[in-house]
Amino acid sequence: MKIVLLSVGKAHETYVQQGIQDFTKRLNNYFNADWHIIAPLKNAASLSIQETKLQEGKLILQHILQDDYLVLLDERGKEFSSAQLANFIQQRANESTKRLVFLIGGAFGVSEEIFKKANCVWSLSQLVFPHMLVRLILAEQLYRACTILRNEKYHHV
Amino acid sequence: MKIVLLSVGKAHETYVQQGIQDFTKRLNNYFNADWHIIAPLKNAASLSIQETKLQEGKLILQHILQDDYLVLLDERGKEFSSAQLANFIQQRANESTKRLVFLIGGAFGVSEEIFKKANCVWSLSQLVFPHMLVRLILAEQLYRACTILRNEKYHHV
Repeated sequence: MKIVLLSVGKAHETYVQQGIQDFTKRLNNYFNADWHIIAPLKNAASLSIQETKLQEGKLILQHILQDDYLVLLDERGKEFSSAQLANFIQQRANESTKRLVFLIGGAFGVSEEIFKKANCVWSLSQLVFPHMLVRLILAEQLYRACTILRNEKYHHV
Repeated sequence: MKIVLLSVGKAHETYVQQGIQDFTKRLNNYFNADWHIIAPLKNAASLSIQETKLQEGKLILQHILQDDYLVLLDERGKEFSSAQLANFIQQRANESTKRLVFLIGGAFGVSEEIFKKANCVWSLSQLVFPHMLVRLILAEQLYRACTILRNEKYHHV
């Protein structure tokens, strides 16, 4: 199974870059995992929020394949514990999912079309985190989930 | 009101350092806020988890004053939304709290004595985060809370 980390926005900011790179590298010991960053729209300032989400949605769709299992990170989703996330990933692998895609939407979230396309909607927390920090948290949690599945030392209970 | 950020463990690791410094600096535009890092016990390897927590507890108590309002970050706590956190901070300021202390315990959590001493126990998320990332999340959320209270642009709803 391949893990695709899809995010609408600027390149990783420096304050999260080292952590994202490190945890993504560690994650690659378990699954082939890569970031795909979709650059923000150049004309965003002249667009309504609704139109921004629609246009970003079209760009997102270009990165999603028919068979992908799409997990949308969105505050309307359900929360997982780290152990539940690990089980969730194991289940996807057991089902022979080819690509497990985690999507972090743009500054205003995603269009209704993308929301409906998601196979699962996941809320990290009741707290709202900045986009860049969500990337770092996601990379760390996916790595942590793999260590839980392999019963490795990283995760204290 | 002064905000004290108290954490048992090593100095900020490089992957979170820039973010912690930046958000703490921004937080200082609203409240006087400072980190106090309590170094891990030197003989921790020879101690039981229980004994480690007891000894760390003694060190923690040296940093807490009689009138402090102590918020312990612990997964057994209740979750807040970012808006609820903002209200919580406002309430503490309204009550003329002198020092609002946020405590991140050591690798195995805190002793029962410290847990009982806490005025509030807060769980960031159902996910378990590494100690260093908790520091970064805390600094960002406190800054975010201040922008919410001032109705500033940082926090999208």
